[in-house]
Amino acid sequence: MKIFCGRSNPELTREICAFLGVEIGKCIIHKFKNDNTFVRIEENVRGKDIFVVQTSAIPVNDSLMELLIMIDALKHASARRVTAVLPYYPYVRSDKKDQPRVSITARLVADLLEAAGADRVLTMNLHSEQIQGFFRIPVDQLLASRILCGYFSGNGLDDCVVVAPDAGSAKRAERYARVLGLPMAILDKRRDPLNDTVEIFHIIGDVAGKRAIVFDDEIATGSSMIETAHALMKNGATDVRAGAVHAILCGDAPRRLQKSAYREIVVTNTLPVDGEKRIPKLKILSVAQLFGEAIRRIHEGRSLSELFSLHQ
Amino acid sequence: MKIFCGRSNPELTREICAFLGVEIGKCIIHKFKNDNTFVRIEENVRGKDIFVVQTSAIPVNDSLMELLIMIDALKHASARRVTAVLPYYPYVRSDKKDQPRVSITARLVADLLEAAGADRVLTMNLHSEQIQGFFRIPVDQLLASRILCGYFSGNGLDDCVVVAPDAGSAKRAERYARVLGLPMAILDKRRDPLNDTVEIFHIIGDVAGKRAIVFDDEIATGSSMIETAHALMKNGATDVRAGAVHAILCGDAPRRLQKSAYREIVVTNTLPVDGEKRIPKLKILSVAQLFGEAIRRIHEGRSLSELFSLHQ
Amino acid sequence: MKIFCGRSNPELTREICAFLGVEIGKCIIHKFKNDNTFVRIEENVRGKDIFVVQTSAIPVNDSLMELLIMIDALKHASARRVTAVLPYYPYVRSDKKDQPRVSITARLVADLLEAAGADRVLTMNLHSEQIQGFFRIPVDQLLASRILCGYFSGNGLDDCVVVAPDAGSAKRAERYARVLGLPMAILDKRRDPLNDTVEIFHIIGDVAGKRAIVFDDEIATGSSMIETAHALMKNGATDVRAGAVHAILCGDAPRRLQKSAYREIVVTNTLPVDGEKRIPKLKILSVAQLFGEAIRRIHEGRSLSELFSLHQ
Amino acid sequence: MKIFCGRSNPELTREICAFLGVEIGKCIIHKFKNDNTFVRIEENVRGKDIFVVQTSAIPVNDSLMELLIMIDALKHASARRVTAVLPYYPYVRSDKKDQPRVSITARLVADLLEAAGADRVLTMNLHSEQIQGFFRIPVDQLLASRILCGYFSGNGLDDCVVVAPDAGSAKRAERYARVLGLPMAILDKRRDPLNDTVEIFHIIGDVAGKRAIVFDDEIATGSSMIETAHALMKNGATDVRAGAVHAILCGDAPRRLQKSAYREIVVTNTLPVDGEKRIPKLKILSVAQLFGEAIRRIHEGRSLSELFSLHQ
Amino acid sequence: MKIFCGRSNPELTREICAFLGVEIGKCIIHKFKNDNTFVRIEENVRGKDIFVVQTSAIPVNDSLMELLIMIDALKHASARRVTAVLPYYPYVRSDKKDQPRVSITARLVADLLEAAGADRVLTMNLHSEQIQGFFRIPVDQLLASRILCGYFSGNGLDDCVVVAPDAGSAKRAERYARVLGLPMAILDKRRDPLNDTVEIFHIIGDVAGKRAIVFDDEIATGSSMIETAHALMKNGATDVRAGAVHAILCGDAPRRLQKSAYREIVVTNTLPVDGEKRIPKLKILSVAQLFGEAIRRIHEGRSLSELFSLHQ
Amino acid sequence: MKIFCGRSNPELTREICAFLGVEIGKCIIHKFKNDNTFVRIEENVRGKDIFVVQTSAIPVNDSLMELLIMIDALKHASARRVTAVLPYYPYVRSDKKDQPRVSITARLVADLLEAAGADRVLTMNLHSEQIQGFFRIPVDQLLASRILCGYFSGNGLDDCVVVAPDAGSAKRAERYARVLGLPMAILDKRRDPLNDTVEIFHIIGDVAGKRAIVFDDEIATGSSMIETAHALMKNGATDVRAGAVHAILCGDAPRRLQKSAYREIVVTNTLPVDGEKRIPKLKILSVAQLFGEAIRRIHEGRSLSELFSLHQ
Repeated sequence: MKIFCGRSNPELTREICAFLGVEIGKCIIHKFKNDNTFVRIEENVRGKDIFVVQTSAIPVNDSLMELLIMIDALKHASARRVTAVLPYYPYVRSDKKDQPRVSITARLVADLLEAAGADRVLTMNLHSEQIQGFFRIPVDQLLASRILCGYFSGNGLDDCVVVAPDAGSAKRAERYARVLGLPMAILDKRRDPLNDTVEIFHIIGDVAGKRAIVFDDEIATGSSMIETAHALMKNGATDVRAGAVHAILCGDAPRRLQKSAYREIVVTNTLPVDGEKRIPKLKILSVAQLFGEAIRRIHEGRSLSELFSLHQ
Repeated sequence: MKIFCGRSNPELTREICAFLGVEIGKCIIHKFKNDNTFVRIEENVRGKDIFVVQTSAIPVNDSLMELLIMIDALKHASARRVTAVLPYYPYVRSDKKDQPRVSITARLVADLLEAAGADRVLTMNLHSEQIQGFFRIPVDQLLASRILCGYFSGNGLDDCVVVAPDAGSAKRAERYARVLGLPMAILDKRRDPLNDTVEIFHIIGDVAGKRAIVFDDEIATGSSMIETAHALMKNGATDVRAGAVHAILCGDAPRRLQKSAYREIVVTNTLPVDGEKRIPKLKILSVAQLFGEAIRRIHEGRSLSELFSLHQ
Repeated sequence: MKIFCGRSNPELTREICAFLGVEIGKCIIHKFKNDNTFVRIEENVRGKDIFVVQTSAIPVNDSLMELLIMIDALKHASARRVTAVLPYYPYVRSDKKDQPRVSITARLVADLLEAAGADRVLTMNLHSEQIQGFFRIPVDQLLASRILCGYFSGNGLDDCVVVAPDAGSAKRAERYARVLGLPMAILDKRRDPLNDTVEIFHIIGDVAGKRAIVFDDEIATGSSMIETAHALMKNGATDVRAGAVHAILCGDAPRRLQKSAYREIVVTNTLPVDGEKRIPKLKILSVAQLFGEAIRRIHEGRSLSELFSLHQ
Repeated sequence: MKIFCGRSNPELTREICAFLGVEIGKCIIHKFKNDNTFVRIEENVRGKDIFVVQTSAIPVNDSLMELLIMIDALKHASARRVTAVLPYYPYVRSDKKDQPRVSITARLVADLLEAAGADRVLTMNLHSEQIQGFFRIPVDQLLASRILCGYFSGNGLDDCVVVAPDAGSAKRAERYARVLGLPMAILDKRRDPLNDTVEIFHIIGDVAGKRAIVFDDEIATGSSMIETAHALMKNGATDVRAGAVHAILCGDAPRRLQKSAYREIVVTNTLPVDGEKRIPKLKILSVAQLFGEAIRRIHEGRSLSELFSLHQ
Repeated sequence: MKIFCGRSNPELTREICAFLGVEIGKCIIHKFKNDNTFVRIEENVRGKDIFVVQTSAIPVNDSLMELLIMIDALKHASARRVTAVLPYYPYVRSDKKDQPRVSITARLVADLLEAAGADRVLTMNLHSEQIQGFFRIPVDQLLASRILCGYFSGNGLDDCVVVAPDAGSAKRAERYARVLGLPMAILDKRRDPLNDTVEIFHIIGDVAGKRAIVFDDEIATGSSMIETAHALMKNGATDVRAGAVHAILCGDAPRRLQKSAYREIVVTNTLPVDGEKRIPKLKILSVAQLFGEAIRRIHEGRSLSELFSLHQ
Repeated sequence: MKIFCGRSNPELTREICAFLGVEIGKCIIHKFKNDNTFVRIEENVRGKDIFVVQTSAIPVNDSLMELLIMIDALKHASARRVTAVLPYYPYVRSDKKDQPRVSITARLVADLLEAAGADRVLTMNLHSEQIQGFFRIPVDQLLASRILCGYFSGNGLDDCVVVAPDAGSAKRAERYARVLGLPMAILDKRRDPLNDTVEIFHIIGDVAGKRAIVFDDEIATGSSMIETAHALMKNGATDVRAGAVHAILCGDAPRRLQKSAYREIVVTNTLPVDGEKRIPKLKILSVAQLFGEAIRRIHEGRSLSELFSLHQ
């Protein structure tokens, strides 16, 4: 077993390797002056069981191409099996054809990974569960939900209500509500029929006098999360917190979230959260141990389902 | 262009062909005494643009194998292009790996269709939109939603509320609510923490004094629909109706639905609804014209998106 | 090594497992009320060498789809190698295009098995040897011929003649004749040129005063076998017995065979023979040991050819 | 439509082109001094419907590689469709795995043709019908049987009997017997149990006082055909003739056949029969018209089955 | 026929479309705030013959992913044929495995293009001709050489010598020398055996008193070109000019080239040359007409070879 | 591990096996009288790591087909991994499309090897390095260069100059020049502009008074090598020797080389050099040890790059 690491989230890979007690595989990755990505594996990998950790961090296309080139180099260097470890899956939200003549890019990514030679995929909290079906190779999907739930239940759940930021998130929020034993509510966002540019926010379910926890799979621009917090406060919630797996936090999201009604925003380290992104309201939980344990079990041919039930 | 017809829903195919003004392609299909399905195409198809209409009616595996054998026979008989027309897609609910070591059978079906030689797929209201991504060949998904909405709005929408029968249907119900300009509510079903075999039904959102319309993509055993109607009445709804695209109506569903709180249940003819299934409460809308128009446009290379906006 | 078992022939699988001293792999298989087949593997199979035993018993399409879904579930659960064990191969007689625009369904089945992810196939007495060429994956074909020959030679071969029920079976019958050291004859069946609906049966070769043994690969409706026995008795045979590998015995074949001129009909248990099929004239020989030994050798990477020479 | 021609049977291709009224496509084929085959297509083929005629004449591997290189050159030169026209299919007798660890080379040939880019295949009288199933691309198999039957029935069939030279040919011979309305017999060849190197020939069926016509699909060394003639004469046949589609006539077969008991040997020109092979006893019938008509119909998308019923 | 345009070189695409008298296909391309590339084709493309022009400009990975997503969107929108038009091929220099465990990325790019659904490729002056062999789909390679040669011969070739900047370019330079009827020389660059960091430049062939024209396929950092000019002047060349097809001009190459010994540097517009890159010494020739004519001929199924002989 | 051997170069295979201390795998290969190649593997290979040594010796197409059939037989006999060992790669010079409508046959060979089931390739000194990119399976390319260099440096390099026989060989010759620390020169061959059938040979670089060593990858007809020697002597070289990896020596090349200006011609045994080819001027170096060591390391999963650095 060897673990190689793209340039998207070296910190997480280091944590995973520390947990497993192995060293990161030696590998040179850089860009030539002509902007071409170059990869050279610096260790013998013939017949080895290889894991390549690369999350879909910004710049997204560079992260993806870097991964594809690493896989290609490893396969042609006769690696026995290459597992692409994708803590945050690339183009995860492009998972359907909701407009004419658009690409289901999450599916294209699956095809590209298979074309490059990936033998299996290990990932976390896909935007929709159906994405597993985009692959012909085996996919294991870890869930950070149990980690998030553990954190919130450790802080007291009295008077709490789980909130979905829109109808599309209802299913996801309901799972959190079940695990935590809490009631749920949903934000219903509509365009005003009188004035098409104005949006009306309506909460379905009871939140008045309650402490709300808004759950989503990722926070990108944060706009939807911030609108939800605002609507919850207006509807009488006494406190608003957020939980999400993937902390993309693009553009001025960190600054705006820090100024928002949220008291606390709990995320994981599937994506690097550094520099200006590390706002005071953010609580970052690590998924390194979960990935480490999954890698160990994949390598040893032990069941992962047991692991899911432990951490889900 | 030629349209061939499996044995699952000849009535719908006849309607489609009538709309298009073409005859159904000649084809012998039967089972030998050894239970093997036999297909012989009785017309020259070399270089032709072929459409095979086969819905996933019970017996499901027979319907699917019959389709695969038809496609194989057509391709080896040198058809130029074979489009599998699947009004109700086989194994549509097996679209994710929500338990360990289960098959994403909707994806397997996609693989089998491609292995048999299908060049494209035309289908309707998939359980999840991501299923389109299971295919490498082009897929067109028609939506019967506009047909259903048209029926309900033609009957007055005063005091109405759209209801999702569970959190997983919230997104789907929300789309109906938007088109109809109605508020929405969701049924939240939980196990009683004190007695694990008892289920507690709670309505999120306001339904008291309102006329409820429950929307789902399909009605199979009807249990979830019936529970929803019951909970709605208990919570003060004045009237309950249902709208669903695919009328599977398996087992004693027809009898139980007829006895239920529903005043009317509106479905389409993507699946054959005959014999005992034709209960008085059922209103069946035809999708033949929508399929016919789509087939015409695919054959002529005209845009289908225009069609979606017309009928969605 | 693990052996899983579809629902087509559990008795044979139990015998194979008993021979090998292993337990049948745990697996849930049932049909939902909507007639969809559901499979869940109940044991960890990561990196394991898996054998799935499923014969093509009636209902044929259910047996096949069940097998495909099992293979898909096993492969996506990361089984290292999945061998489809098919004692009776599905659609084995659809092995050629003897009419225009029909499917070579035995080939389509090969494609479907490969699409579902099967890594190899173990089967018995294919209707034609060329079917092995339909696969890109390795196929091992066991022959029950030696088992059948052993039974007949144990009962004395004096004055016996081997009979092929038609010209297409001549090659097959000749192999039995060689092994048993017997002469052979062939039934020549023609339409009467004067009356097209009447068939004329003519025996090529000498059978008068001899004890005939009719060999075929399978008995389905039994009509051809019964006609042969009738023609043999008319041409002076003193006794007629039959040997065949696959006992499909569909429709009223059991009743008609019991009433026929045959003194004894010897078959194997590649297909389940139970209930009304267990007529007194039937002698059932077990192939469990042969399959068990083949599975053991495949798993251990030992030669199977040695096994063929022992049992052929 | 354009027809290109390998170097294996230019005479037949010329006849086909004459029938169709087209010129043979311009193409340079030669071997470099280093024994590498070189092909350059000398006409624009973009978007064209191309037929490449190449029979499996000796030297067999050169003929095959020449064909594969031609197909590759045509596809990369953007031909729209390339049909490999194989009057005699390469390695047609290697169609099963009748010994351990041998190649089903007829299947390998199918894979190589597909790998090189062939879109379809047109061939004649395959050794076994199952070979069609070795392909994923469409295959049309012409039958020269009707041409052979026409010749024999034109010369009187009184007192004739059709003879199969071994049990494996019984099915084939029976079809000739049916079409010609003749009885049939079979040569049964066994090793002498007392002296393993001696073979005993026994005729099953009546041939005494009859005029025998031995049918087979091909004549290679001629040994089996000559043994059959000898056994027929010994068993009282008054006259022996032979009919076969493919005239390989390798080694000293021509000389030995000329000296044999056959009065006449009727073959076709699927393979070139020139020089010493043109022995006086040989009657060569042309298949050019049949191939020409098939090519025309394939190109025009008209049914070939009609053609089969005319000529079969 | 429709021509779509990525964001890498809109100017060239506009010129091509102007030459062909067609409008650029409507298409929305942008990046979401989360850095994901989004593409929506804004016109019906069913059954159409589509050309997508995208050169491998910096940022290289964004250009490539944008192209892959466009192709995917077009194919799933049922385009009949998609030709990827790549004036400068991505990762063209990564065409061999000259170090252990590196990726032949130019080959990976071919695999990715095929995985995304490209049907054919049109490109220009590949770094090595073998790259055409990386594809299974047809590739047409245009050559800008004749355009460059035409420019230089229009300016007088007296006393000129063609120079290859290294041994790897000798073959390429020789072709220019042949067409222009000039002698050639080669720069031989070695490490000083005494001091490994120092490089020694030696000119093989005569350049003293001659006017040198250095030819290469691309100019990236310009270092090798500048060294060559310096060595040529030191060895007595009276004048130095350069000709190259692809003007990457990365980093401070423009500034350094302007300061170099070159009197003139002639390139083409396969890559956008704008802003600071447009240094006075640069002469830019357009390849738009050549691409336009090639696209027209591909669309009409006319020969391109004729075009090569005209322009090569 | 087992090593099987085609009929192209048994002597080299014996040397390799002797080095490795293993016996050649048992295998029957012959041609039937109908010119069909037949292969039967005579040992169990289930789960084994197999190497098949077959060089592209004349007759080239027979060598290739023999190899493809061996691979097919081995894979269907359940070999775990089959490595095609190709000391001289078939059709290695057909690696580009330098004329319209020709086949890149070296790429076709790659496709055929993959279609037959090869898992990896081990070869030596490909004509161009890009050929590695023709494969999706891993390829290891050994270099005999170090063996050749070792021989020449062992004989003194004073006053020597490395010569490339044409511009296309300049890169290759430069590598020899670097390793040996020698200057280089290139033969420039042009058609006389006054008389198109006359060729003019010009040496670029200094050779007068020097001992020339001409390097190329292969010697086929020897014409180019002989012309080079002649031009070198005319330009004042005092001595001419040649070094080349692959000794094809077709036609009357041996006789002409023996009569030529070369004092010594150094080649390897990648191809059999026997009978009349063993001219006195030829020095044959063995590559057996290099192949043996590579096979050992591939089998044991050890790095080959280390081996390259030792021998390159």
